Amino acid sequence: MYLADEAWPDLETYFEEESLALVPLGSTEQHGPHLPEGTDHLIAEAFAREVADRTGYLCTPTVNIGVSPHHRQFWGTMWVDAPVFRDYVESLARNLTYHGIDRIVFVNAHGGNVQHLREVGRRLRDAGDAYAVEWMWDDAIPDLVDDLFEQNGPHGGPKETAMIQYLHEELVHEDRLDDAKEGGVPSVAATGNVRHGSRTFYDAIDNTDNGVLGDQTDATAEKGEQLFDAASDQLEQLCEWLANQEFEALLPKEHV
Amino acid sequence: MYLADEAWPDLETYFEEESLALVPLGSTEQHGPHLPEGTDHLIAEAFAREVADRTGYLCTPTVNIGVSPHHRQFWGTMWVDAPVFRDYVESLARNLTYHGIDRIVFVNAHGGNVQHLREVGRRLRDAGDAYAVEWMWDDAIPDLVDDLFEQNGPHGGPKETAMIQYLHEELVHEDRLDDAKEGGVPSVAATGNVRHGSRTFYDAIDNTDNGVLGDQTDATAEKGEQLFDAASDQLEQLCEWLANQEFEALLPKEHV
Amino acid sequence: MYLADEAWPDLETYFEEESLALVPLGSTEQHGPHLPEGTDHLIAEAFAREVADRTGYLCTPTVNIGVSPHHRQFWGTMWVDAPVFRDYVESLARNLTYHGIDRIVFVNAHGGNVQHLREVGRRLRDAGDAYAVEWMWDDAIPDLVDDLFEQNGPHGGPKETAMIQYLHEELVHEDRLDDAKEGGVPSVAATGNVRHGSRTFYDAIDNTDNGVLGDQTDATAEKGEQLFDAASDQLEQLCEWLANQEFEALLPKEHV
Amino acid sequence: MYLADEAWPDLETYFEEESLALVPLGSTEQHGPHLPEGTDHLIAEAFAREVADRTGYLCTPTVNIGVSPHHRQFWGTMWVDAPVFRDYVESLARNLTYHGIDRIVFVNAHGGNVQHLREVGRRLRDAGDAYAVEWMWDDAIPDLVDDLFEQNGPHGGPKETAMIQYLHEELVHEDRLDDAKEGGVPSVAATGNVRHGSRTFYDAIDNTDNGVLGDQTDATAEKGEQLFDAASDQLEQLCEWLANQEFEALLPKEHV
Amino acid sequence: MYLADEAWPDLETYFEEESLALVPLGSTEQHGPHLPEGTDHLIAEAFAREVADRTGYLCTPTVNIGVSPHHRQFWGTMWVDAPVFRDYVESLARNLTYHGIDRIVFVNAHGGNVQHLREVGRRLRDAGDAYAVEWMWDDAIPDLVDDLFEQNGPHGGPKETAMIQYLHEELVHEDRLDDAKEGGVPSVAATGNVRHGSRTFYDAIDNTDNGVLGDQTDATAEKGEQLFDAASDQLEQLCEWLANQEFEALLPKEHV
Amino acid sequence: MYLADEAWPDLETYFEEESLALVPLGSTEQHGPHLPEGTDHLIAEAFAREVADRTGYLCTPTVNIGVSPHHRQFWGTMWVDAPVFRDYVESLARNLTYHGIDRIVFVNAHGGNVQHLREVGRRLRDAGDAYAVEWMWDDAIPDLVDDLFEQNGPHGGPKETAMIQYLHEELVHEDRLDDAKEGGVPSVAATGNVRHGSRTFYDAIDNTDNGVLGDQTDATAEKGEQLFDAASDQLEQLCEWLANQEFEALLPKEHV
Repeated sequence: MYLADEAWPDLETYFEEESLALVPLGSTEQHGPHLPEGTDHLIAEAFAREVADRTGYLCTPTVNIGVSPHHRQFWGTMWVDAPVFRDYVESLARNLTYHGIDRIVFVNAHGGNVQHLREVGRRLRDAGDAYAVEWMWDDAIPDLVDDLFEQNGPHGGPKETAMIQYLHEELVHEDRLDDAKEGGVPSVAATGNVRHGSRTFYDAIDNTDNGVLGDQTDATAEKGEQLFDAASDQLEQLCEWLANQEFEALLPKEHV
Repeated sequence: MYLADEAWPDLETYFEEESLALVPLGSTEQHGPHLPEGTDHLIAEAFAREVADRTGYLCTPTVNIGVSPHHRQFWGTMWVDAPVFRDYVESLARNLTYHGIDRIVFVNAHGGNVQHLREVGRRLRDAGDAYAVEWMWDDAIPDLVDDLFEQNGPHGGPKETAMIQYLHEELVHEDRLDDAKEGGVPSVAATGNVRHGSRTFYDAIDNTDNGVLGDQTDATAEKGEQLFDAASDQLEQLCEWLANQEFEALLPKEHV
Repeated sequence: MYLADEAWPDLETYFEEESLALVPLGSTEQHGPHLPEGTDHLIAEAFAREVADRTGYLCTPTVNIGVSPHHRQFWGTMWVDAPVFRDYVESLARNLTYHGIDRIVFVNAHGGNVQHLREVGRRLRDAGDAYAVEWMWDDAIPDLVDDLFEQNGPHGGPKETAMIQYLHEELVHEDRLDDAKEGGVPSVAATGNVRHGSRTFYDAIDNTDNGVLGDQTDATAEKGEQLFDAASDQLEQLCEWLANQEFEALLPKEHV
Repeated sequence: MYLADEAWPDLETYFEEESLALVPLGSTEQHGPHLPEGTDHLIAEAFAREVADRTGYLCTPTVNIGVSPHHRQFWGTMWVDAPVFRDYVESLARNLTYHGIDRIVFVNAHGGNVQHLREVGRRLRDAGDAYAVEWMWDDAIPDLVDDLFEQNGPHGGPKETAMIQYLHEELVHEDRLDDAKEGGVPSVAATGNVRHGSRTFYDAIDNTDNGVLGDQTDATAEKGEQLFDAASDQLEQLCEWLANQEFEALLPKEHV
Repeated sequence: MYLADEAWPDLETYFEEESLALVPLGSTEQHGPHLPEGTDHLIAEAFAREVADRTGYLCTPTVNIGVSPHHRQFWGTMWVDAPVFRDYVESLARNLTYHGIDRIVFVNAHGGNVQHLREVGRRLRDAGDAYAVEWMWDDAIPDLVDDLFEQNGPHGGPKETAMIQYLHEELVHEDRLDDAKEGGVPSVAATGNVRHGSRTFYDAIDNTDNGVLGDQTDATAEKGEQLFDAASDQLEQLCEWLANQEFEALLPKEHV
Repeated sequence: MYLADEAWPDLETYFEEESLALVPLGSTEQHGPHLPEGTDHLIAEAFAREVADRTGYLCTPTVNIGVSPHHRQFWGTMWVDAPVFRDYVESLARNLTYHGIDRIVFVNAHGGNVQHLREVGRRLRDAGDAYAVEWMWDDAIPDLVDDLFEQNGPHGGPKETAMIQYLHEELVHEDRLDDAKEGGVPSVAATGNVRHGSRTFYDAIDNTDNGVLGDQTDATAEKGEQLFDAASDQLEQLCEWLANQEFEALLPKEHV
């Protein structure tokens, strides 16, 4: 059920019977020469809406802009500062509890949001307001991702390329996949910017000239579909697991 | 041009030639028994995208959740607290200036956001970072709105109803328009809650049992189209005016 | 009863019997060539003290400096930034509840404070600490204001001029009333700075060279007295209404 | 010159020629059974206005409510939390610099404000915006205070009593001076609440049943006048000294 | 008992039986040509550990960096801004209450921390979370300090010198004691920087060229030992007194 | 060179010649039944002091308390909330730049601090104030760690055990190593608490009954020495690399 499409009287039953919400979050940031800046929020929204359709759980509108200062040197990257992002997500999540929501899945598709969503989740849980978990699709199906691609790349690589090929083919510049590979780097390790155990870079541009990593030429819409289906299955199961827990069991454990 | 659909290399020319961005903002909140909770952000996005298409100016993704605590008693209303909303919008607006944007139109469709967007606009201008203006479609065409409807209603009334009938007819419960009118109130004045010059209410529910005001039975998709076209014309002209100003002329004037 | 004049043992009875406080708030900012910078706080204090005298309700000292950055280009305007003003008023209002105050009238005479006092009022009410309403004298008697003056002007116009002529005639430069009118503008509408529905100005100086609007030559002390008496009546009635409510009835309504 | 009484055009010359402002700050808090709650802000305002009159320096309106949580157990005490007070004073002080003020005397009459005004002063100075000093009348004339009274008392004692007897005799309950003495304590030392070098109290009520210290029966209006004149002389000299400094000499010294 | 040396199972008994913790706090800042920058945190830690050893009360690790912007012009001074210091100490203190601690002694050896620790103590007490007192060794034995030294000096003077001579003789440059005295000033009073009752200085360097005050040539390790023993006795007694109070008796008193 | 041991005149040369500082940071938190709560800050301090000794670079005092709410259910764990920790470290780091430091190595030994130190590093770099990198010893020598132990464990496991055996053998409860292993879990993966790609735990106690992971019986002081030497070599090289960079090269790259 997609919250924004419903009139308020039609939501009452849901809130009376269920207490779980899917909140999609992404970013608007460069994804190389071949992918749209909306890549992350498009993916997050697709997963959240798909699983809401499958299961009947409530899906909220998407938070489209996230923590992406590390991509700012590339045209069009938008971002909010980290403390602001945390407070925004915390506020909207806590306010959902007013309607009885007490468990939330942050359906996230941007690596730069992860730690912040975890920090927000801690605040909500430690306050006893809600139990929120962060979920990223590729973390849910690591083996499949490894099987399908030679060189994954954490940003703008073949897995994100395949996903957008499947979800929004019209937004992929197929003719630039070679450029994407050539102008980028295979992996962070390949850059030599992890020195003596320390990450000595802060921005994507410190590592890659065109903003991406991995071998994008490996990507196809079919692989994207495979990934989408497999990860949707995982998200569906996560929702069911979460919905079945007692709320007390989700709260912080007592002192030893 | 819609930022989220573009790959970064395709945005360079825009930022070199133009310095204006349209940022749509709305809310996700109850709009009565007949309209979807997404009403405000759907309208904001429609205007911003329409005028971006007409003019070529850049449109960013939409901020879907705004300052709506006054609607929280109705199922599904989402909101962020006012200080958090201000900081979120300020952060994303200021960060746009990194790419050379120095003038922004907040294409807003939620009355509850207005004062906060003005406060953000002041911060940006006083800091010399950007000149942002807040725009709401119905403020741009007050006479037409008055002509088309007997009883406007500031929230969930005939003007918003007509707009969604035009933009997303599948989301309007046509069979509930009478209920909407009967279960609500004609206007704030009619509630008697402005006492001796003081607004003695804070929440929508203080005034109206079903969350809306006005006479919705007056609304049609045709009127919605009229409104949309007329207000889009105004927004287009606003953008052109703004784009044509010297940046210095937009900054605060000197001390007398 | 004026709090600051009393010794603490003489206040006990009040707090045991009543739970309402009048808190005057204004600004210190330019009011044109003819009026003192203290205009707003002088007016606010006068109303609050008058009605405290009439009714016996408690009046606190005045908050003399408010949110006036939009007047800063004129010599002497003082202001605090909006977030700071909100926190200051919230803190002093919430702390009043320690003595049992649970309803507050913000007797305000500065338009620039209105939205901030409403925001503070929401914080106090949503927290269940107190119910505060914002009151401005001219909002309480709109018809009389319209009747008395041809061209009101929202700032430094004839209504404020008449009020200070009545309350503090020694502070009005009567010989500058013509200048005030000539050097200013009749109204915001007359400036052309509301463009296509958007307010494209932020500061008073964007609209008016001498800081004021309206036709001040219309003002007299007699009219000021009429305004003062009529608005005091309204404030008195507001206090009585507010004092007679059950506190629970003032708190936020339950979820539908 | 009192800022709030002036129209803006009459302030221009001052700001062009001078760069000093006197800002009176006090509190609204219990001062025992015999003195009004406004004692501190009345005293602060009296000194600031007196010296502004004598010297021509600019005096702003008074900040009437300060940091007084330690007096809250006594009826009527108002306060703002310390961080809020600091930000409020910092904001109004910094904003004064917009008109060219670069040196400020905080004419303070409440001990509980001292450290906060010093902290604000540091912020202003370290930022290079202004040089502000905190001044309290009794710190300026310690010997005279010692000479005139047997048992000073830091709060609501004979020195404050004498001052209000002189400035506002109608607000002093002369018939309660004995009670004030009997119901209070001679000094903090006498309470035994400084233990092993540690102040083990936080609130006035931890030390004194009626909120005051010292021997109030010693106080007379004549002594008040003596104190007022002597301390005004000191404040006048402080202003002259401060006005005569080069601004650069007031800024932080360079690194060694 | 020193918390950091213990494994968690060995702490259970303490928290079950006791509710007091000693928290040492100091600074890292210049202490003249003869003393180490760590002087304050070394002294604080020594006292807290000594008394923890004597009494069995729990001592936590030391907060080594405090509020020292006023010493920054001298090489090596470290500091955190005052609001940050308060929040850091408040957070660690409040979190101690999770284990049942409800009374804390801030064993402090830096004058610049005092007011901030008091402010933190108020926050903790007013929230009902814990009762914290601030303790500085020299405040506990003022007579002995006066007896032992001619010219104390509040910073880097003979009392701190003697203390480090006793605790860490290897860190004292004995050959620079004369320089310390010659290059500094005897006292703040001697600088003339308290003008007409106002402290017209903010930084140490405003008063003293080498950063210190007093006559250091008076100091010996033997005197240091005397001071240390005497002050430790006081701290021990303070702990015993505090441990023996009912928690309710430590909380804020009721309204009169 | 250890800053806290030096008198200020002896630091001048360093700051004139060098611009790098080592800042050790750890935590005070449970490390299982066998290790002291200070484990992390003891390790961090040991590395920072060792490399400062080897290279002559400046080492500051240690930040002993970090972000450890996830260990709070075990007796004695201390922590500060994440936003407070970030601000504290940011403040002390930025203030170091006053003396000319423009590159900082956060010598960190607590995994829970990593993301926060990275966020602080970004703030400092994006502001152009300093370039700070986060370094953790085990990240610097992953292969050696893997070689030496069968089952590493991320917290309280054999690598930390070996380190404390080497650095502070008196603080290790050798007789509890078996218990540590038996009462804990081998790894996070073994707990089953990563579900469908989502970490569904927040606290250590969600995963492990005694607070630790891994096989501690593998640990010896000799292995600790090996680890310490190897990681110190890495840290030394990191410092040399960092010291040799041009400051401009460390700042954010320009927009593409």
